[in-house]
Amino acid sequence: MRDFSTDHRWLSINTATVRAQWPLDRIVSECAQRGIRAISPWRDQVAAAGMAKIEALLQATGIELSGYCRGGMFPAATAAGRAAALDDNRRAVDEAKTLNAPCLVLVVGGLPGALAGHAEHKDLAAARNDVRDGIAATLDYARGVGMPLAIEPLHPMYAADRACVNTMEQALDICDALDPAKTGALGVAVDVYHVWWDPKLQAQIARAGRERLLAFHVCDWLTPTRDLLNDRGMMGDGVIDIPRIRGWVEAAGFGGYSEVEIFSAENWWKREGGEVLDTCIARHRSAV
Amino acid sequence: MRDFSTDHRWLSINTATVRAQWPLDRIVSECAQRGIRAISPWRDQVAAAGMAKIEALLQATGIELSGYCRGGMFPAATAAGRAAALDDNRRAVDEAKTLNAPCLVLVVGGLPGALAGHAEHKDLAAARNDVRDGIAATLDYARGVGMPLAIEPLHPMYAADRACVNTMEQALDICDALDPAKTGALGVAVDVYHVWWDPKLQAQIARAGRERLLAFHVCDWLTPTRDLLNDRGMMGDGVIDIPRIRGWVEAAGFGGYSEVEIFSAENWWKREGGEVLDTCIARHRSAV
Repeated sequence: MRDFSTDHRWLSINTATVRAQWPLDRIVSECAQRGIRAISPWRDQVAAAGMAKIEALLQATGIELSGYCRGGMFPAATAAGRAAALDDNRRAVDEAKTLNAPCLVLVVGGLPGALAGHAEHKDLAAARNDVRDGIAATLDYARGVGMPLAIEPLHPMYAADRACVNTMEQALDICDALDPAKTGALGVAVDVYHVWWDPKLQAQIARAGRERLLAFHVCDWLTPTRDLLNDRGMMGDGVIDIPRIRGWVEAAGFGGYSEVEIFSAENWWKREGGEVLDTCIARHRSAV
Repeated sequence: MRDFSTDHRWLSINTATVRAQWPLDRIVSECAQRGIRAISPWRDQVAAAGMAKIEALLQATGIELSGYCRGGMFPAATAAGRAAALDDNRRAVDEAKTLNAPCLVLVVGGLPGALAGHAEHKDLAAARNDVRDGIAATLDYARGVGMPLAIEPLHPMYAADRACVNTMEQALDICDALDPAKTGALGVAVDVYHVWWDPKLQAQIARAGRERLLAFHVCDWLTPTRDLLNDRGMMGDGVIDIPRIRGWVEAAGFGGYSEVEIFSAENWWKREGGEVLDTCIARHRSAV
């Protein structure tokens, strides 16, 4: 297992972590000043700052991507809705390619309409079929472009509105169905926040192996957790044994970045951005 | 599948649902007035009203139990703590027996101290070992008394602080290890709120079968859910396809009560108790 205690060369910042403080161009500059070598930006942040500007800034600073957030949101109640989702995912693949991302992260979506508070149906199995079909279609396109897709199993508390792929086992079953040869075109993003509770986690990480482990995200689970979406903790402040899980991921062959992704409305989003990044660096060394 | 649309003979009220409104003796009376045939009371409510009084009241009204809430909370950081938990579980078994409950529901516990906001360690595997050992010891006692134990897998969002048994598969693995003969002494409580998201739910309910299915709890998952603990919805107000899950449970051989268990700080706990019970009756008919 790699020693993270002496430097932060394997630290990546998911740019949602300081999205409340800074626009993306500023985030890139602040990361560069701190010797952070990678980020994972969100599409809306790229769009707001301008794709060409971000592309140039990444080139100038030498910062690379650990992933691109995000594709997915496949389920819809109508064929037109499903087709629109595929169009959008193709655009996401193209953007990821432009930014030279190692993978496009997929938050696959849940029940149509649920994110807006009005689910159009309650058929979770149907939503899961939409997801499988959507990933299959997007994979066809992404293979052509050479952009790996990383299915991110989300915590079961997001099954209704954000992602109905909720365990590593489920995600890997989809991978095995759509990419049985393990070509590297389809894999998973392991976020400790979403999967730490899973009694089958170690076994499923081993099953995933090097070919399927495309990204590793870290933050922490707070007790109590006061909000389902925006109360993630800084590594070390919660109950997740992050080094143990990183050990499993590395034993399975993953050697990439540890990407810090923290949504924290009442804490980290209210602090000065530089303090947040400095804390990420310190905790990457001490708690990851 | 039983037809619930014309009466509510298979409705049970978990007494947490109106705990903010009434003491337990009043709850029993109000249920009796409405022809509700079963309740599932909590230990603290029984203690507050008095065991003898509740016992007499149940006898007088003819109301039976669909379960008794609750045993569990096995993990502790010290041997003394684990022993204290076993003592407490034996008392819970005895109380359940006194009230003629069909099962004692087990909320097994999570990381020691986490419920108070200060986890004493982060070793989820160790907590799970404590749980297995605690259930084994309690099962020895409960067999002698003739009180079945129902492991309730809790939603993964409670893994840290309330229960580190989080899927039906995990609960049934424990059942198979400790009661391989399926004697009826050990089984599961299926609460749709906790398990509805699980891609393996149907298969695991079938695996459980009649011998392991000891209780069936209903409420609904709201979108958005505003609180991890106390924002459960009334059946029909959320996204869970409850009839589908009840169909699976009944196909596996369960023929008992559908127990309504709603924690709702901002809605149902603020309404008049009679309105809550009347709504439970109506929704039991229309949405379960």
